[in-house]
Amino acid sequence: MATEPSTGYDRDAVRAVLDRARAESRGALTAPEAKVLAGAYGIPIPGEALATSADEAVALAVELGLPVVAKIVSPDILHKTEAGGVEVGLSSPQEVKAAYERIVGNARAYNPEAAIEGVQIQQMVGGGTEVLVGATTDPTFGKVVVFGLGGVLVEVLKDVAFRLAPVTREEALAQIGDIKAAEVLEGVRGGAGVDRERLADVLVRLSDLVTDFPEIAEADLNPVFASASDAVAADLRFVLDFAPPKEPARFTREEILGAMERIFKPRAIAIIGASNEAGKIGNSVIRNIVDGGYAGHVYPINPKADEVYGRTAYKSIADAPDGIDVAVFAIPAKFVAGALEEAGRKGVAGAILIPSGFAETGEQELQDEVLAVARRHGVRLLGPNIYGYYYTPQSLSATFCTPYDVRGGTALTSQSGGIGMAILGYSRSTSTGVSAIVGVGNKADIDEDDLLTFFGQDDNTNAIAMHLEDLKDGRAFVQAAREVVPKKPVVVLKAGRTSAGARAAGSHTGALAGDDKVYDDILRQAGVVRAPGLNELLEFGRALPIMPAPTGENVVIITGAGGSGVLLSDAVVDNGMSLMEIPPDLDEAFRAFIPPFGAAGNPVDITGGEPPATYEKTIRLGLEDPRVHALILGYWHTIVTPPMVFAELVADVVTQARAAGIDKPIVASLSGDTEVEAASAHLFRHGVVAYPYTTEKPVQVLGAKYRWARAAGLL
Amino acid sequence: MATEPSTGYDRDAVRAVLDRARAESRGALTAPEAKVLAGAYGIPIPGEALATSADEAVALAVELGLPVVAKIVSPDILHKTEAGGVEVGLSSPQEVKAAYERIVGNARAYNPEAAIEGVQIQQMVGGGTEVLVGATTDPTFGKVVVFGLGGVLVEVLKDVAFRLAPVTREEALAQIGDIKAAEVLEGVRGGAGVDRERLADVLVRLSDLVTDFPEIAEADLNPVFASASDAVAADLRFVLDFAPPKEPARFTREEILGAMERIFKPRAIAIIGASNEAGKIGNSVIRNIVDGGYAGHVYPINPKADEVYGRTAYKSIADAPDGIDVAVFAIPAKFVAGALEEAGRKGVAGAILIPSGFAETGEQELQDEVLAVARRHGVRLLGPNIYGYYYTPQSLSATFCTPYDVRGGTALTSQSGGIGMAILGYSRSTSTGVSAIVGVGNKADIDEDDLLTFFGQDDNTNAIAMHLEDLKDGRAFVQAAREVVPKKPVVVLKAGRTSAGARAAGSHTGALAGDDKVYDDILRQAGVVRAPGLNELLEFGRALPIMPAPTGENVVIITGAGGSGVLLSDAVVDNGMSLMEIPPDLDEAFRAFIPPFGAAGNPVDITGGEPPATYEKTIRLGLEDPRVHALILGYWHTIVTPPMVFAELVADVVTQARAAGIDKPIVASLSGDTEVEAASAHLFRHGVVAYPYTTEKPVQVLGAKYRWARAAGLL
Repeated sequence: MATEPSTGYDRDAVRAVLDRARAESRGALTAPEAKVLAGAYGIPIPGEALATSADEAVALAVELGLPVVAKIVSPDILHKTEAGGVEVGLSSPQEVKAAYERIVGNARAYNPEAAIEGVQIQQMVGGGTEVLVGATTDPTFGKVVVFGLGGVLVEVLKDVAFRLAPVTREEALAQIGDIKAAEVLEGVRGGAGVDRERLADVLVRLSDLVTDFPEIAEADLNPVFASASDAVAADLRFVLDFAPPKEPARFTREEILGAMERIFKPRAIAIIGASNEAGKIGNSVIRNIVDGGYAGHVYPINPKADEVYGRTAYKSIADAPDGIDVAVFAIPAKFVAGALEEAGRKGVAGAILIPSGFAETGEQELQDEVLAVARRHGVRLLGPNIYGYYYTPQSLSATFCTPYDVRGGTALTSQSGGIGMAILGYSRSTSTGVSAIVGVGNKADIDEDDLLTFFGQDDNTNAIAMHLEDLKDGRAFVQAAREVVPKKPVVVLKAGRTSAGARAAGSHTGALAGDDKVYDDILRQAGVVRAPGLNELLEFGRALPIMPAPTGENVVIITGAGGSGVLLSDAVVDNGMSLMEIPPDLDEAFRAFIPPFGAAGNPVDITGGEPPATYEKTIRLGLEDPRVHALILGYWHTIVTPPMVFAELVADVVTQARAAGIDKPIVASLSGDTEVEAASAHLFRHGVVAYPYTTEKPVQVLGAKYRWARAAGLL
Repeated sequence: MATEPSTGYDRDAVRAVLDRARAESRGALTAPEAKVLAGAYGIPIPGEALATSADEAVALAVELGLPVVAKIVSPDILHKTEAGGVEVGLSSPQEVKAAYERIVGNARAYNPEAAIEGVQIQQMVGGGTEVLVGATTDPTFGKVVVFGLGGVLVEVLKDVAFRLAPVTREEALAQIGDIKAAEVLEGVRGGAGVDRERLADVLVRLSDLVTDFPEIAEADLNPVFASASDAVAADLRFVLDFAPPKEPARFTREEILGAMERIFKPRAIAIIGASNEAGKIGNSVIRNIVDGGYAGHVYPINPKADEVYGRTAYKSIADAPDGIDVAVFAIPAKFVAGALEEAGRKGVAGAILIPSGFAETGEQELQDEVLAVARRHGVRLLGPNIYGYYYTPQSLSATFCTPYDVRGGTALTSQSGGIGMAILGYSRSTSTGVSAIVGVGNKADIDEDDLLTFFGQDDNTNAIAMHLEDLKDGRAFVQAAREVVPKKPVVVLKAGRTSAGARAAGSHTGALAGDDKVYDDILRQAGVVRAPGLNELLEFGRALPIMPAPTGENVVIITGAGGSGVLLSDAVVDNGMSLMEIPPDLDEAFRAFIPPFGAAGNPVDITGGEPPATYEKTIRLGLEDPRVHALILGYWHTIVTPPMVFAELVADVVTQARAAGIDKPIVASLSGDTEVEAASAHLFRHGVVAYPYTTEKPVQVLGAKYRWARAAGLL
């Protein structure tokens, strides 16, 4: 019988063991110490007890559960096996009794002088399924727990799942179900399944232990033998680190929002280094702010000019009027600390550090110095080494790039300037409506969790898409994401996924890229939708805000091209959705609209050559039936229903449905000659996510919306 | 000791067993019969022999290899174990001798009347690694062999590899290495690896067996125990099918090319159903052929018109001049057979059957009737149920869509009309140079292997991209692909990859979609590059012909945006390539051109803000160093190096290198404002595959080129 789970933890017992290890400068625990920890946190290990008679051995064996192992206990016998002092696999009371007597007899014969304390009776484990339960300290996320199957194949296939510690019981159960080979836990080849509740309990207890005692850097319960009735850790290993990295600086939500409100909605902006000289960054910045239509005060700071771009210039920010919320820095790195000192005294909330020449070129000390100045004055820093930021609700283009003014619901952020430029160009090319585009660069201070906290409550933003190479504080990011995700989608492109990519990330920002599987599991746990590449980041950012959330999993394809229907079906499965099993009455209703040789079922194949009315009737039916939750349309260019006719009819049907209170996600794939490009754009403008020449992209976007809706608890 | 492999096969022994099974109308073989097959083809099974004395038992055991199993052999003892007639794990001569005597003694005691023939001594297997070797009959590809690990995890994870039978030894070795968990075969946890040569030998023998005897529908050797010195099939199962599907009709290469040459380069075309009435298919077809610039004779066939679209019309094709190579049918399905009869008599080589209303609407008999007419006259059929076909070298647009005239090296085919329209629109939108666009529709006759055979030897074509939902004759396709791949890339988009997609495929064409893993492995074995989706099919088709083939695996990234470098590195790994380890001298040479804080190594990060000269020098260096085989460029839009400046300098450098005899694949990812779109187009026109706003696409295309180059044996 394994140690029974208990609700209370004996923290004092663990503290005593760890204090002793610390006093002895040990980095690991002995096996008996490990058992103390397991016992204190109710982690089941093989039961054992000392028997001093054959009858007592039998009673203990029955209590612990057969089969058992029996071992001589004598301070005078070191080599127990040599002394005939060990017997395994004792599976009946008779065998235990006989073994007790043989062992004691053998021991006496081996060393007649030996003091014999008795025979250790130990539960024999090894049945069921071998699994691994562990914990480690991730440089980005801190304490994480890991679950996987034991054994050779999983060592090779690396089939494990991570979660941020501490895990709840529900999270632990999800983690167990998250491994690819989870089916093995159901029992295979007729075997019984494991008790997942018991396994989840072990995960929760281990995660509580490493959370309560941060100096436990790593823990391995490997193997844990899991069966239909039990989960017993047969081997335990604990690694200690008494000098863990210090927690990153954290601000309260109120502090973050207080600063961010002023940064994104400034009353006045000072441009330090504003210049009249074309080609200078300080010139581009003031032009963009002014030409972009920003309505607040703009104060150029330039010791050598009286006026810059038509505005009165000041020698120093100290000379400028009060009420400045943001100072944009367009001066060389070496002058930043001094100018920031003055901006701090002036009471700015945010310093936008465009200059490069800090940590990214090895000048970490200079960056630290600037940060110290900022902290002293309570100024938050954006950057350094950035293109700046945009916030369209304020017509604010505080950047050396070009203004952008297409307002919409997407806030985009990028760690890299190159990716920022791609965001800008793509947004412009596709008329993506954005609320903000923000460069975070070296992230000396403001990072993704600050921005997530702001955009999460910003009424002008209804989806957030972030490119990042690392997270300074993974735990703060997860906390922020958990608060935002129930309200709006958070999309992340994590660069440096692969080891080659991670190496490049290392050489770029000095950031330590964590193992991608850790990122992947924990971002998913936080409800974040991960974009596999840059194009998807941009596309999800563009499309998610214009789609309503689905309210159920029933996806229906309506297509004029059977060939598209097949590819769309492939994409549905690829993107984690499934085709609705159409109920007979609905199938009959679809059939009434399509030619006899068309295929109802799902996809609904209305066949090529049908007039607009067939598209219209079937789409309307799909929208109006409350059992259908999302529609995927496959259009095929014909003379009978040209592309723009299709686009207009779909836009009309959708608009009418919305007026009637029906708003479902609807995406479209358009196959045809080049007119399908304009037709797709028309559909996009009317809230139908549509693409020409691809069956994958519309379904991928719908899949992203579903991933978010599930994480947000909407389904 | 297992049966020793032998080079000769005893076909007569197998034939005798199969003939008996057929005579007894049995669908499976008994265990002794299975052993006969294994013996005849040298598939190693546990050795066994009858001992009639204890000494003989010892001699046999030593010969077979210890440990052994001993079993009583007596017609009078059915329940051997109950009779004490079985002993396992006998690992020494002493144990064998004692066991023989015990078994015989037990048997005599159990049944004193029993006739005892002796004791069967059988090699005991079970060590090493359990693997599965099997064969099955795939509806598309015929005989295939399968390899996988045995055991529960692989049953769950479905980690198996397929190959077309018969396999060569080299193919079998590649197949063994193709499973995800192949590392297990190397030996894990300190264990010895398996002997892959022995395993390959088993695969070859089984594949020969099922090839020689098509009536063996399925074979399972499961488990095969593989060790460092042996591979023994412990259990055998054979399933028979004496009524296998008949082989599809096949034409010789000469026959195919003879017909295809006339179809793609016709001297004269008849349009059956050519019409003056706008909106009719017969009107669109003649207009497109004439307006597209086709230079041969065009004969409208229309019983009610004297002239159609300015050309003399004929009542019947019989009345038209001789020398007609192609007849395009633009008449209702029910009239096709009659008109084809006349066209056949006229000696046309190909009938292009645009009409629908055949097998796709359930009219299989009508389609069969048309095919029978065609076969009688030696006419090849394209379609029915297609948009037609284009062949730009002849300015031929035999279709009801619109003409297309951008000549280039890509031949595209589609099974579905909808996908064909996407091909046309995308090609037009991107100015993709194509040699041909062909609809195959119902594939009553001409299918992908015919087209592959033609395009493979067509000097106007240097890449082939095919959309397909099924293959009528997988084996003919593989054979054609194997001939073409060493000369030019073959890209396939196989729709119906997933079971949902396969179901949709089933309802669309009535095609039986095979298991996708079979398709995937066998297409790869044939050297085909598989496109994961429609967009990739189009993009690979567009880009592969303009790239030179790489001559080695050393890929270098040169980037102005570190952030792009990280994403490009991710994409390199995702697409099965690896970043070159830059040798110290080359690293030093790169460093000489880039700022001190730039990162050399790979990616070569020249940093943002660099002038055109830095791009130019580093790119030139990468092109000129013979150790570098392919370049990936990451451009970041700056004022210092605007997009078109970058595009022009890269085009110039590449053009100069080509003039100097250096031609390497080079792709580019452009991050920036909308000017990067024109810059990408400029690069594409100069043979540099370039895309804006994506780091994934250029690397994916390069990866496709590499996959082809490896399959073509160029690396």
